[in-house]
Amino acid sequence: MKFIIKKERLIKSIQDALKAVAVRTTIPILVGIKFDADENGVTVTGSDSDITIQSFIPKEDDDEELVEIVEPGSIVLQARFFSEVIKKLPESIVEISVEDQFRTIIRSGNAEYIILGLDAEEYPRLPVIEDGDRFSIPNDLLKLIIKQTVFAVSTSETRPILTGVHWIIEDQHLTAVATDSHRLALKKAKLQSETGDGKTYSLVIPGKSLNELLKVLDDSNEPVEIIITNNQILFKAKNFLFFSRLLEGKYPDTSKLIPTDSKTTVKLNAKEYLEAVDRASLLAREAKNNVIKFSTMADGAIEISSYSPEIGKVVENVKSLSTEGEEIKISFNAKYMIDALRAIDGTEVSIYFTGTMRPFIIRTEHDSSILQLLLPVRTF
Amino acid sequence: MKFIIKKERLIKSIQDALKAVAVRTTIPILVGIKFDADENGVTVTGSDSDITIQSFIPKEDDDEELVEIVEPGSIVLQARFFSEVIKKLPESIVEISVEDQFRTIIRSGNAEYIILGLDAEEYPRLPVIEDGDRFSIPNDLLKLIIKQTVFAVSTSETRPILTGVHWIIEDQHLTAVATDSHRLALKKAKLQSETGDGKTYSLVIPGKSLNELLKVLDDSNEPVEIIITNNQILFKAKNFLFFSRLLEGKYPDTSKLIPTDSKTTVKLNAKEYLEAVDRASLLAREAKNNVIKFSTMADGAIEISSYSPEIGKVVENVKSLSTEGEEIKISFNAKYMIDALRAIDGTEVSIYFTGTMRPFIIRTEHDSSILQLLLPVRTF
Repeated sequence: MKFIIKKERLIKSIQDALKAVAVRTTIPILVGIKFDADENGVTVTGSDSDITIQSFIPKEDDDEELVEIVEPGSIVLQARFFSEVIKKLPESIVEISVEDQFRTIIRSGNAEYIILGLDAEEYPRLPVIEDGDRFSIPNDLLKLIIKQTVFAVSTSETRPILTGVHWIIEDQHLTAVATDSHRLALKKAKLQSETGDGKTYSLVIPGKSLNELLKVLDDSNEPVEIIITNNQILFKAKNFLFFSRLLEGKYPDTSKLIPTDSKTTVKLNAKEYLEAVDRASLLAREAKNNVIKFSTMADGAIEISSYSPEIGKVVENVKSLSTEGEEIKISFNAKYMIDALRAIDGTEVSIYFTGTMRPFIIRTEHDSSILQLLLPVRTF
Repeated sequence: MKFIIKKERLIKSIQDALKAVAVRTTIPILVGIKFDADENGVTVTGSDSDITIQSFIPKEDDDEELVEIVEPGSIVLQARFFSEVIKKLPESIVEISVEDQFRTIIRSGNAEYIILGLDAEEYPRLPVIEDGDRFSIPNDLLKLIIKQTVFAVSTSETRPILTGVHWIIEDQHLTAVATDSHRLALKKAKLQSETGDGKTYSLVIPGKSLNELLKVLDDSNEPVEIIITNNQILFKAKNFLFFSRLLEGKYPDTSKLIPTDSKTTVKLNAKEYLEAVDRASLLAREAKNNVIKFSTMADGAIEISSYSPEIGKVVENVKSLSTEGEEIKISFNAKYMIDALRAIDGTEVSIYFTGTMRPFIIRTEHDSSILQLLLPVRTF
């Protein structure tokens, strides 16, 4: 194998592939990144066996020559070390060639590295995804769907299925739901393309995979093609392929959790309310329980407070835009409220309560596609 | 105690004082910051008992009112929590008042915190530094002196005296020396003011103190007054006092370590050489020994190389500006060379060797005040 390549483009592809490379792995070759050079260009692959990211460098892009393939072939190189070497090379052009025994020579300007590579034949095969159901979502919308839900997945392995986000595809709509059983995030989106034959799909994508996918997606509205098979999902964008395994098992039916009526509705300026919760959360966090109290006041305002016998207390009044229905005093986890408000990202938010011990929902007027639900905390 | 203060100025002072506050401490009250309000303004003090930083907020600065003292007094507040609370307050003005039982009320806009403070009487007294020998150094020069030496102190407690930087003050000159017995950094500077009576001072300042001092010094050329007593040093700048204990014991005589002759002199472009060493260090670091090899070549160039049987090797040629004297092949710690070159920060550097097993020195033509010395590593 031998190719001569633009350094900056190689760095970009290595950085994308690196996001899938685990720091510790039980499969030694997965500390490496695989390079495949053929007549079309160079493919850079990183994997931790759950996630695989493949970045492709074509010979030319917009009439600019990116890579000259002198001799096709494959090699696996230690990912992090190789990445640092490439970043520090003196010239903008790098020559990479493989000799006997997987010895790989990297030349740039007056610098020459010989590093010991590994046999690409021993690198795990990619999942084969030929025929699968496919649809597409623009980069920016896909990012938004992930950001507005993935934070609510469970981080505990006691119910592994809850560490993923549940995607339901039905009638050209995607519904994404995540819950850790203390809070729930839900986002709906319309799909651009047909999903074929009116079938319904239900899949659970690991939260960790979606968090890594976020890092490689760009902010364009170019479509990302999504292909689903039994146990894998593939995201196919212009310059990369992103494979993730799916979680096995049945995701709980969350639709019954979401209250449809409300006894108290409070509408607030989102920024003022978030800042007040954030300040109260400082004390709540210091008190270790992270719990703050929300009370409607006689004058229509609300009071946010937190108390700890060791540290002290905080009380804050926030004007409401409107308050309807019964009085309420309710306690909840401050961090979950902050996460929910950040996900909604509106100028105003409305909170719908159905009682001190019942889950409540947070929405915004100008975007009906997103819903956040929190369970209250019992305080005695 | 009660005062009303500009939030931004309070934050600045807390951040300075926080640099002295240890995360873990055996003296519980030192997790706090002490506030003293009197007719002149507010003094904010943080300490870990080795270092004490005191930041003063005057009532007025440049005709701008900074703080209104309603009632003088003192309180100690939990440092990190209080700092975060202040940073998140809604308004630019903060009212702080202390009630019974050290309950401290913080008000800003609609937010009100009550936090439990500690008795300021229990906070350790500052070292009394009234009469001491004093001289002064501008902020920017003091920063430079520290930066060019402190990195070379020992991090091991086997010889505690080497964890400090040795300052010798003599004939209106300061000489600062640091060594961890593998390398040495030396910087000389002329002092602005008289040091009194032609006395010679010799003191050892903990490296940790100097690193913290670096963070509070600004880049102005305003003088910092330095006052020395038996076991303390005080740095007195416009807005803060910085106290540090001195290390006890005799610092070794390092002057004999520095060779005065040279058998080989190589002059190099500093940037090219640093980059080559930096690249070679990647492999040396991966190989765990951090050792690189420096060889003069027949054509006057030098070769930088590193080799590891497990990882591979790197070879790089660097043109020299001049090479005089005997050929040399020598090995040294790459990180120490990088530290030395960064400290010198010149456009060219000259390296003076006196043999493969002898310490060698690195200097730059345009700044004779700095000298770096490295011990070679034996490679077999």
